[in-house]
Amino acid sequence: MRRDVSNRKLRAGIVGGGQGSFIGAVHHVAVELDGQAEVVAGAMSTDPQRAAASAKAWYLDRSYAPNHMHFPAAKAFLEQGIHVVSDKPMTFSLDEAQELAKIVERSNLVYALTHNYTGYPAVRQARYMVRQGELGDIRKVLVEYIQDWLMTPEEKAGNKQAAWRNDPTKSGIAGCVGDIGTHAENLLEFITGVKIVSLCADLSTFVEGRLLDDDANMLLRLDNGGKGVLTCSQVAAGEENALSIRIYGSKAALEWRQMEPNTLIFKAPKQPGQMLRTGLSYMSEEAKQLTRLPAGHPEGFYEAFANIYKLVIADIRRVQEGQQPLGGYPNVYDGLRGIQFVYKSVESSKKGSVWIDM
Amino acid sequence: MRRDVSNRKLRAGIVGGGQGSFIGAVHHVAVELDGQAEVVAGAMSTDPQRAAASAKAWYLDRSYAPNHMHFPAAKAFLEQGIHVVSDKPMTFSLDEAQELAKIVERSNLVYALTHNYTGYPAVRQARYMVRQGELGDIRKVLVEYIQDWLMTPEEKAGNKQAAWRNDPTKSGIAGCVGDIGTHAENLLEFITGVKIVSLCADLSTFVEGRLLDDDANMLLRLDNGGKGVLTCSQVAAGEENALSIRIYGSKAALEWRQMEPNTLIFKAPKQPGQMLRTGLSYMSEEAKQLTRLPAGHPEGFYEAFANIYKLVIADIRRVQEGQQPLGGYPNVYDGLRGIQFVYKSVESSKKGSVWIDM
Amino acid sequence: MRRDVSNRKLRAGIVGGGQGSFIGAVHHVAVELDGQAEVVAGAMSTDPQRAAASAKAWYLDRSYAPNHMHFPAAKAFLEQGIHVVSDKPMTFSLDEAQELAKIVERSNLVYALTHNYTGYPAVRQARYMVRQGELGDIRKVLVEYIQDWLMTPEEKAGNKQAAWRNDPTKSGIAGCVGDIGTHAENLLEFITGVKIVSLCADLSTFVEGRLLDDDANMLLRLDNGGKGVLTCSQVAAGEENALSIRIYGSKAALEWRQMEPNTLIFKAPKQPGQMLRTGLSYMSEEAKQLTRLPAGHPEGFYEAFANIYKLVIADIRRVQEGQQPLGGYPNVYDGLRGIQFVYKSVESSKKGSVWIDM
Amino acid sequence: MRRDVSNRKLRAGIVGGGQGSFIGAVHHVAVELDGQAEVVAGAMSTDPQRAAASAKAWYLDRSYAPNHMHFPAAKAFLEQGIHVVSDKPMTFSLDEAQELAKIVERSNLVYALTHNYTGYPAVRQARYMVRQGELGDIRKVLVEYIQDWLMTPEEKAGNKQAAWRNDPTKSGIAGCVGDIGTHAENLLEFITGVKIVSLCADLSTFVEGRLLDDDANMLLRLDNGGKGVLTCSQVAAGEENALSIRIYGSKAALEWRQMEPNTLIFKAPKQPGQMLRTGLSYMSEEAKQLTRLPAGHPEGFYEAFANIYKLVIADIRRVQEGQQPLGGYPNVYDGLRGIQFVYKSVESSKKGSVWIDM
Repeated sequence: MRRDVSNRKLRAGIVGGGQGSFIGAVHHVAVELDGQAEVVAGAMSTDPQRAAASAKAWYLDRSYAPNHMHFPAAKAFLEQGIHVVSDKPMTFSLDEAQELAKIVERSNLVYALTHNYTGYPAVRQARYMVRQGELGDIRKVLVEYIQDWLMTPEEKAGNKQAAWRNDPTKSGIAGCVGDIGTHAENLLEFITGVKIVSLCADLSTFVEGRLLDDDANMLLRLDNGGKGVLTCSQVAAGEENALSIRIYGSKAALEWRQMEPNTLIFKAPKQPGQMLRTGLSYMSEEAKQLTRLPAGHPEGFYEAFANIYKLVIADIRRVQEGQQPLGGYPNVYDGLRGIQFVYKSVESSKKGSVWIDM
Repeated sequence: MRRDVSNRKLRAGIVGGGQGSFIGAVHHVAVELDGQAEVVAGAMSTDPQRAAASAKAWYLDRSYAPNHMHFPAAKAFLEQGIHVVSDKPMTFSLDEAQELAKIVERSNLVYALTHNYTGYPAVRQARYMVRQGELGDIRKVLVEYIQDWLMTPEEKAGNKQAAWRNDPTKSGIAGCVGDIGTHAENLLEFITGVKIVSLCADLSTFVEGRLLDDDANMLLRLDNGGKGVLTCSQVAAGEENALSIRIYGSKAALEWRQMEPNTLIFKAPKQPGQMLRTGLSYMSEEAKQLTRLPAGHPEGFYEAFANIYKLVIADIRRVQEGQQPLGGYPNVYDGLRGIQFVYKSVESSKKGSVWIDM
Repeated sequence: MRRDVSNRKLRAGIVGGGQGSFIGAVHHVAVELDGQAEVVAGAMSTDPQRAAASAKAWYLDRSYAPNHMHFPAAKAFLEQGIHVVSDKPMTFSLDEAQELAKIVERSNLVYALTHNYTGYPAVRQARYMVRQGELGDIRKVLVEYIQDWLMTPEEKAGNKQAAWRNDPTKSGIAGCVGDIGTHAENLLEFITGVKIVSLCADLSTFVEGRLLDDDANMLLRLDNGGKGVLTCSQVAAGEENALSIRIYGSKAALEWRQMEPNTLIFKAPKQPGQMLRTGLSYMSEEAKQLTRLPAGHPEGFYEAFANIYKLVIADIRRVQEGQQPLGGYPNVYDGLRGIQFVYKSVESSKKGSVWIDM
Repeated sequence: MRRDVSNRKLRAGIVGGGQGSFIGAVHHVAVELDGQAEVVAGAMSTDPQRAAASAKAWYLDRSYAPNHMHFPAAKAFLEQGIHVVSDKPMTFSLDEAQELAKIVERSNLVYALTHNYTGYPAVRQARYMVRQGELGDIRKVLVEYIQDWLMTPEEKAGNKQAAWRNDPTKSGIAGCVGDIGTHAENLLEFITGVKIVSLCADLSTFVEGRLLDDDANMLLRLDNGGKGVLTCSQVAAGEENALSIRIYGSKAALEWRQMEPNTLIFKAPKQPGQMLRTGLSYMSEEAKQLTRLPAGHPEGFYEAFANIYKLVIADIRRVQEGQQPLGGYPNVYDGLRGIQFVYKSVESSKKGSVWIDM
């Protein structure tokens, strides 16, 4: 997004996400949801015709053609002084990720990565409660991200996204772990504030002929002495987008499920379980600021995604006014950590599912 | 919305819904969500300063001051050839509602009323399944809309919306029944296609000093011989926005709950219950067209609201091109029926909760 | 049950409930569950062969043949100085019910009626919390008992129980209302401690050729000024045994569902909802005494039924020792009230669903 | 249980489980629940006074004093020609387990181990559906058994069971894994019919001063090429008795949760999820035979436990009549496998959480 100085909407351009990509439309909605920014230009496809058609469908004035890699695009924009919000994967390789981190460090620009699940108010509430010490020491974390959309070889059936996801020249060294496992890893570290220090990963490819993993189970050890399990799958029959996390501390526990995102369950021994709900007055200030509607009016995926943009837009305005950005959205270091996680998971599994330090 | 002819976004103006009103922001988001229309002007408050501030917050070019009644505003716009999307209550009185229906009939304009819960894909799926005969004859309907936001006399505690809701000179003859009971009535008739032919209503005012009802229970008789219960409350402790409907037919049943809106439960005797989920391939075409995201990515209140606008915008474009509008959104007759329902409920209750024909 | 004086199990006889009756086996299990009583004699069928076979299957020493009516059997036992636990309906007619009440009053015997749902620990907890004032004044009660086992004319298909239930010469004046509506009525009054003072009932017979009601909706007014809705059905497709109650007070609310009986939900405005669970230390003493297993080990229908017997057995022992019985189980007055409720419901409906005082 | 030949109840003796032990009472209830056997003698405590008091409370004619170990008791009974139903752990050591297996093999007696969760009808239904091929090849199994009753050092606070569980001289080499981890292992193999071939286990002791594990996470590999995760904990705040299993196959998936035991969820790609419920006609014959009540009347822990006894009693009668036993309950080999699982888990963890073949 361009540096704007006047009292008007920020202007945004979008790279990738042309017609047929659901995530492109999500970005479009999310940028504009709060009326604080508008998409004015797009380079939405490597295919110039598709790019133009996509731009026209959104009534954009300007259309360009991009290449398809996140890193060179981000790098180019940052070098032009343009703030960047990037989809995952942040880069193709670990080297690129490290280079990008340096570029961002040298700039005075906002860089955000759409680990969008951190945008849910209930996730913020969970982080807040952990920070307040309501759980005590984190002992055990169970985090899952389970889907079924690759149960059959969709990549051979003309599904473009499936083809891309399972092509190592485009997705890199991992399939399921890179696509959704990193969201689980990010969520665990985002909420708990503890870091994974080592892991033992068992990656599987259940669909014949597939080149990358479509399922993984991992044991985790955390830097505070806690333990964890991370499981992800894209071949789990009947599962839609089942991201969930359960966090057990020495005092209490929390449970959150993305498919019912406005509820956060808090449990403590010998007390009735509590159902915390977004939109109610007992929620933390941060959770309330990221909730737009009264309790009981469900907010969902778009709104959580838009919350990332909301925080980014506020930071861009701060930077424009010469103030320090406040962050609060996933940044280049979160992206770097995600790519390290993918590399370590693959390394562990290749060596026979042995323990590897992060 | 103005009649537009070129290939560009439709331009919309918004009346009412200034700062402090949650529903104003919902309209703003909903109009623009799909990138097919934009709000360009507003008359968002009877207070000129508040109107101007509201317009500025949304970067609108033009700001006006409205009066606060839905009927004169709608009438004025229609007479200027401007399509109208109106919030409930459609009008203050039954007379006005009947007049408005005639105005719309005479015009060639789109008029929609935001019985927004009909915008949920699962609600459309329910209607589809009833129409397909999957439930058989409708025998029994249980519909509820339960909240707690008026449990205490908020209207005396400076809550502007509560004050307005409980002031008969502004809200008309009913409180809870007019505010949310009509949504329940509309949902019942929308999904089942059967009409309420008579009702026996017991309205209550539980909070001392309140002028209008804050709770109601009703027995219903349906034009196909079926029976029903409608209950609504704004003093039901701990309830957020619990709109739900259960429909029992001679063959099977459906259950839907607004607070988990992407699930529709189908039950038949001696068969496993089924959980139908929005975003999946087995849903009806209509439900799929009103779903933006893959299954498991929750869509909520904004998206359902935006679905009303989506249908309206498509109809405005049809009208602009000289085609017949297709409808599919609540219209002026639904609004008229809602006001009749309120009148009949109040009449029944005042006469000692006797049966009244609709 | 015979008056026993020594330190040994109580001895019980069972009338009715022979092979093919599920409720007979429930009584057998329930009497003996805690090892405090044993069934030693039975008169389990009007058909002597069936009676003998039923007794043999349970290894009973003595078998008799009963007639099939609850009232003469209960009367005969009471007149012999034998304590009685009776299934519903307590009697065939209101006259008999009034006579039975007098017989019990004159005796020094225990008489219990198996409104067995009051035996669930979570129901006792709900009653306790209402009595403690945790809900404030009861404003609104929604009670339901919904099934689908009579969706088709089972009574014509050789289902003995269905035939009996729908035969006015055996079941009396009501079908669904008498069979399950009374359980709902009893549960409402048991938990809340308030009484229904008037009702407006709409009874239906949806299955063609059926002689008694198979569905009913009712508006209720309570003696404390509260309001209620009672709905029951035996033609609600896909419903198993869906008894539930929701109680809204001026301070807070409770919700309980028989099909997940170990959970009680407590809701108050602006507080997280609470899930109270049987077996945990925060439950009331009474609830704990009626729970046999640690939390998380589900107890169900048998155990709730056995709780009625547990309380009855304790009272029989008290009476044997010359002490006052403590009660706590549904008694002859609850039975009388249930029959009044059935009479008033039928009267209301027959007169056009008008209000009738209880 | 004694070999009985006549048409009368089987007579059972109980060893251990005296006053203060919840599981003793469960056995008592479970043996007698169906009226096919009765407890006539007990050796319910190593403390003769407590043994006598326990026997008196149950009105038993005969009371003895036992030692506290399962193996010598089982061995002694089997050598006396008495059928045995034993609680877990089957024996203290692997050597004993192997010896016991040989003793049972040489006898013509029934030996059952109360892996009682296999007694739930929904668990039988799950096994049936897997066997019928409805899931296709098993790819991924997630099995959990999570509690919180040892969150604090109960063993130092006078809790006898906690003290025993955490004393290696009484419980053997494992705590949580031996107590509940084996139930999870058994459930996985019981339902899926596949075997764990290797595991990588990370056992933890979170409560300071505790001698045995109170938590474990494990990766599993299955003999059909499938993968799994097993997690168990007794320090998971707010969890009661959360045993659950999710099984993902190449065609469909199943999910079952012990705390809502009458529901089995079946999911297949692009189909509505199904809720199978015990007591309904579509269930398998085996599930129906282990269900006593009509659908919607919850059966729970006692009834599942009694199902083990039901199968055992039927086999004892078969053996008495010279027929082959049919099995269907956990036997001495399941017990042996459970102890191997515990040994391998501990070995894996001690060696640094490396992979160990079973």
